[in-house]
Amino acid sequence: MRECKGVHWKPQEREPRMSALTDSPAWRDLAAHQREIAHTQMRDLFAADPARARRYSVEAGALYLDYSRHLANDKTLGLLFALALQAGVAADIERMTAGDPVNGSEGRPALHVALRTDEQRFPPRGTDVMPAVRSARERTYAFAESLRAGRVRGATGQPIGNVVNLGVGGSDLGPRLLAGAMRRESNSGLKLRFVANADPYDLEAALGGLEPASTLFIVASKTFTTVETLSNARRARAWLAAALGDAPELSSHFAAVTANTENAQAWGVSTERVFPFWDWVGGRFSLWSSVGLPAVIAAGPVQFDALLSGARDMDAHFREAPPERNMPLIMALLSVWYSAFFGAQTHAVLPYAEDLREFPAWVQQLHMESNGKRVDREGHAVDYPTAPVIWGATGTLSQHAFHQLLHQGTRLVPADFIVPIASDGDAAAHRLLVTNALAQGSALMTGAAAAEPHRVLPGNRPSSTLLLDRLAPRTLGQLLALYEHKVTAEAALLNINPFDQWGVEFGKGVARSLEGGPGAAAPDASTVALLKRLDRATG
Amino acid sequence: MRECKGVHWKPQEREPRMSALTDSPAWRDLAAHQREIAHTQMRDLFAADPARARRYSVEAGALYLDYSRHLANDKTLGLLFALALQAGVAADIERMTAGDPVNGSEGRPALHVALRTDEQRFPPRGTDVMPAVRSARERTYAFAESLRAGRVRGATGQPIGNVVNLGVGGSDLGPRLLAGAMRRESNSGLKLRFVANADPYDLEAALGGLEPASTLFIVASKTFTTVETLSNARRARAWLAAALGDAPELSSHFAAVTANTENAQAWGVSTERVFPFWDWVGGRFSLWSSVGLPAVIAAGPVQFDALLSGARDMDAHFREAPPERNMPLIMALLSVWYSAFFGAQTHAVLPYAEDLREFPAWVQQLHMESNGKRVDREGHAVDYPTAPVIWGATGTLSQHAFHQLLHQGTRLVPADFIVPIASDGDAAAHRLLVTNALAQGSALMTGAAAAEPHRVLPGNRPSSTLLLDRLAPRTLGQLLALYEHKVTAEAALLNINPFDQWGVEFGKGVARSLEGGPGAAAPDASTVALLKRLDRATG
Repeated sequence: MRECKGVHWKPQEREPRMSALTDSPAWRDLAAHQREIAHTQMRDLFAADPARARRYSVEAGALYLDYSRHLANDKTLGLLFALALQAGVAADIERMTAGDPVNGSEGRPALHVALRTDEQRFPPRGTDVMPAVRSARERTYAFAESLRAGRVRGATGQPIGNVVNLGVGGSDLGPRLLAGAMRRESNSGLKLRFVANADPYDLEAALGGLEPASTLFIVASKTFTTVETLSNARRARAWLAAALGDAPELSSHFAAVTANTENAQAWGVSTERVFPFWDWVGGRFSLWSSVGLPAVIAAGPVQFDALLSGARDMDAHFREAPPERNMPLIMALLSVWYSAFFGAQTHAVLPYAEDLREFPAWVQQLHMESNGKRVDREGHAVDYPTAPVIWGATGTLSQHAFHQLLHQGTRLVPADFIVPIASDGDAAAHRLLVTNALAQGSALMTGAAAAEPHRVLPGNRPSSTLLLDRLAPRTLGQLLALYEHKVTAEAALLNINPFDQWGVEFGKGVARSLEGGPGAAAPDASTVALLKRLDRATG
Repeated sequence: MRECKGVHWKPQEREPRMSALTDSPAWRDLAAHQREIAHTQMRDLFAADPARARRYSVEAGALYLDYSRHLANDKTLGLLFALALQAGVAADIERMTAGDPVNGSEGRPALHVALRTDEQRFPPRGTDVMPAVRSARERTYAFAESLRAGRVRGATGQPIGNVVNLGVGGSDLGPRLLAGAMRRESNSGLKLRFVANADPYDLEAALGGLEPASTLFIVASKTFTTVETLSNARRARAWLAAALGDAPELSSHFAAVTANTENAQAWGVSTERVFPFWDWVGGRFSLWSSVGLPAVIAAGPVQFDALLSGARDMDAHFREAPPERNMPLIMALLSVWYSAFFGAQTHAVLPYAEDLREFPAWVQQLHMESNGKRVDREGHAVDYPTAPVIWGATGTLSQHAFHQLLHQGTRLVPADFIVPIASDGDAAAHRLLVTNALAQGSALMTGAAAAEPHRVLPGNRPSSTLLLDRLAPRTLGQLLALYEHKVTAEAALLNINPFDQWGVEFGKGVARSLEGGPGAAAPDASTVALLKRLDRATG
C-alpha cells in the first residue's frame, strides 16, 4: 500500500502484514507510476493526444462513457488492465454468473443476474432458479395488473387506491429509486408512498390524507424480521383496525415481499399475497425481483420488462466486452486508482436528472455496503482502502450546494456526471441542464486563472461523463446494472466479498442488547450517561 | 501540515509555502500530540477516567452534546483550545456580530444574526439594519397570514390553495428543510411544493395535480438572475397563461423573495409582493429571512418566531460561553482535529428523525460551500485541508444503507448522531429509534470481537451524540444556528472566509460560455466530443 504518513488512524491495534495484493507486481507498478503522473496536468494529456476524447470513451447499450478527464494516460490504463488480469476479474465474473458460491462468508451464490436473464436455465452450475424466478415474476405481474385495473378491494369492498411500501435498505431504496426514475411511465392512478424509518413520524406523515379503506401495505423484508419494518407494519395494521375494525378481512390490505414466506403467513399475510425472493439475492441487488413490485404497480409489467431488458444488455456487455471496452470494469479500475493510489476517500455521483434524485442514495448503499469491508476473501485484514464514501445529489441543485468545494476545496473528489441527452420536456430548459453538466466537468478540469487569488480555480480535477440517450426504463436498467457490475468488479480487484454485510448484522443486535436483553454486555459509560438522560427526560 | 505522503494529488503545480498556521506552536503541538494518541483506544480513555462521559459533554439551550467518544483526552482539548486562542476565534466572533466587513473578498459584513436578534439596533458598528429587517418580517408575516386565511386570490378570484417555491441552493434547501422539520406545526391546509432544478421535469412533476387558478409561485433568488429559477418562473407563467390567459392579473399568482427588488418588479411581480433580503446575508445563512416564507405560510408566524428565538438562544451561547463550554466551537475544533491531523476527508450527519431528512443536505451546503476554500483570508493558497465532504441520511435508514462501511470499512468517518429524546409518536417505536442511535455510536466505539474475521468490528471510531429535548421550532432554531456557528468557527480556526463562493460564481458563467457567448474560450476536446454527440442525438 502507499503508506499515507498523515493518516495515523488505525482502528485495529495489530499492524496487518503486507498482503499479496499490495505486494504484487501490478500494484507496485501502479504505485510507482502514480508518482510519475501525479503532477501531470490533464490539459497536457489532451494537448499530447488530439484523439484522447475519442480514445478514452466507451459505449454500452444506450450509454456512452467519457473518461478522458482523468489523471491517466495509456500507461496508466495498461497497468490498471494488468491489475485486472492479475486479480482474475474475468474469472470472478465467470464464477458469479455461473452460480458458484461467491458469497464465501455465507456460503451461497449471488444470482441477481437470474432476475433478468432470458436463459431458460440459470445458473449453468448448481440448482436451476429460473422456475422460481419466472413464477414469482408472473405472480407479481398478475397482482400488479389487478391493482392497476382496480380489481383489488379492501375490507369494505372499496377498490385499493393507495399503496404504501414498508421496507428499509434494499427493500426501500431500490423501489423508491424506480418510483422516481419511472415517474413518466407511471400511469396507474394509484398513490404510492414509502415508509422506511423506525421513527413513528415517518409512517404518520405517509398516512396523512389516506383513507384506510382504500390503502394497501406492502411489507417488504427479506427475513420478515426487520425491526423497523415490522414495527411499521404493526402500526399500519392498528391504523386500519381503528377505522375498519380488527377483522380477518384486514388481511386484504396487506401484501408481503420476502424470502421468509412462513413468517409472512404467520404475521397474517395471505399466501397468495406473499411474493418471494431468495437468499441468493442481496437486498441491495434486489430491485429486479418482487422487491420492484411498487414500480410494477405504478408503471406496469411492460415497462418493468423494459427495465429488466436494459439490465440484461449490461449483463451481456460486462460478460463479453474485452477489458479495454468494458464499461463497468473501467469505472471500477478508476475507482481503485483514485482510492488506493491518490488517497481519495470519496466519490461523487451527480445525475443531471431530477427524476434520478434517489440514485445517489441507491448507489451509496450498493457500493458502500458491498465494498465497505476490512477483510479479504481469505479473512485477512486488508492493508489497502476498500469502498470510498459515495455521496452526491442531482445537478443543477448540486452546483448551488457543494460544487464550491469541488472547484476550490482541498479534497480530491472524483465525480460521475450522469446526463440524459434527450428529454420530452421544454427543449431550452433541458439544453440548459445538459450544458451545465458539461460545463462543470470542463471547469473542474481546466480551472480558471484570475488576478485575485480567491477567484482562481486550480482545475485538474477528475470526472467521468456518462451520457444516456434518454431516461427511459431500458436505459435505466442499463445504468443500474452498470453500477452493480462496477461494484462487483471493484470487489474482485480488491479481493473482498461484496455480498455479505456483517457490520449491519451486528448492528441489528446492539440496540436489543442496550435494552438489557439476555446475555447483554454492560453498555459503555457514554451510553449509560445518555440513557440516564433519556430516561430522566421521558419519565 | 501533516504531510500525507500517500496523497500525491496537487491541483496546483506550485508548492505552497508553509503557512503561519501550520508553522504555529499550537498546530505543531497538535501534530506531535496526534502521534501519541493515534493508537489509543477510546475504551482505555473511559477506563482511565470514570467521569469522562460527564466531563466530555456540554449543554446549550435544549441541546446536549456528548463528545466523549472521540480520540481525544484532556491534553488534546487543551491543545485545541490553545489553537482557538491563537487563531483569535473569540475576536472573530466579536467582529462578525459587531458588523465588521468579515466577508473580505466581497467587502461586506455577514449579518444573519440580525435576522433573529431582539436588539433594537444591530449591528453595534456600521449601518443599523434592524428597521429593514423588522419591516420585511412584518410584511412577510402579513402576507403569510393572508394566505393562511384564504384571503389571497388568483386571477379568477379563486383562493390560493397551493404554493410552489421556485429557488435553488440557499433559496431552496433552507425552506425545504423547514417544511419537513416543522411538518407537525404546519396547519395552513395549503399544499406546499419545491422546485429547484434546471431540469424541466422537476417543475412538470411538481405541477402534477395542481390547478393553475389556485396556485401561487414564490420566486426566490437573491439576485433575481439565477438561471434555473428564472427559467422555472418563466415556464410557471406559461403554465398559468395557458389555463388562465396571459392577463396582467397573472401577477396575483406570484411573489418574490430577493435582494434585487428592481429585477423582480421588472419581471412582473407587484411591489407589495416583493419580500426583500440583503447582500449581507449569504444564501446558505438566509432561511431566517424572507427566504423562510414557505415555512411561515405552512406553520404561521408564531412558530416561525419560535424558530428565530431558538437561533437567538444559540447566538447568545456562542457569544458568551467560555471556550470549554462552547458547543459550536468544540464541534469546530473536533472537525479540524480529524480533518487536519487524522486525514479524515468526510464527516457524516445522521439525524435520527425522519422529519430532519433534508438536514444533511442543508448542512452539506452550509459547510462545504462556506469552507470549501483554497486560499486564506490573505489570499495565500492554504497548506492544510479545509472543509470535509459532509454527507449523511436519517437513521435508522442510514443503518441499512451505509453503516456497514462505518463499522467495517477502512475510512475514518467522524459522525454526528442527532437524536430528539421525546416524541408525540408511538412510544415503543420512538424508543426503538433512540436506542438504535445510541447503540450505533456505542458499537462504533467498542467494536466487537469474533472468531470469524469477517464478523470482527474493530471499533475505536469516533462520533458525537447530540440530544435534543424534542423536535420543535425553538429547538430546531438552536440546532440550525449551532451548525452555522460551527462552520464560522471552523473558518476562523482555518483563517478562511466562509462567506464568499467564487467557485460557484465562476461555474455560473461556464455554461453560458459553452453556448458560445461573447468572449467564450474554445471548449476543451472532451467537451467538444460530448457536444457533438449531444447535437447528433438531438438533431
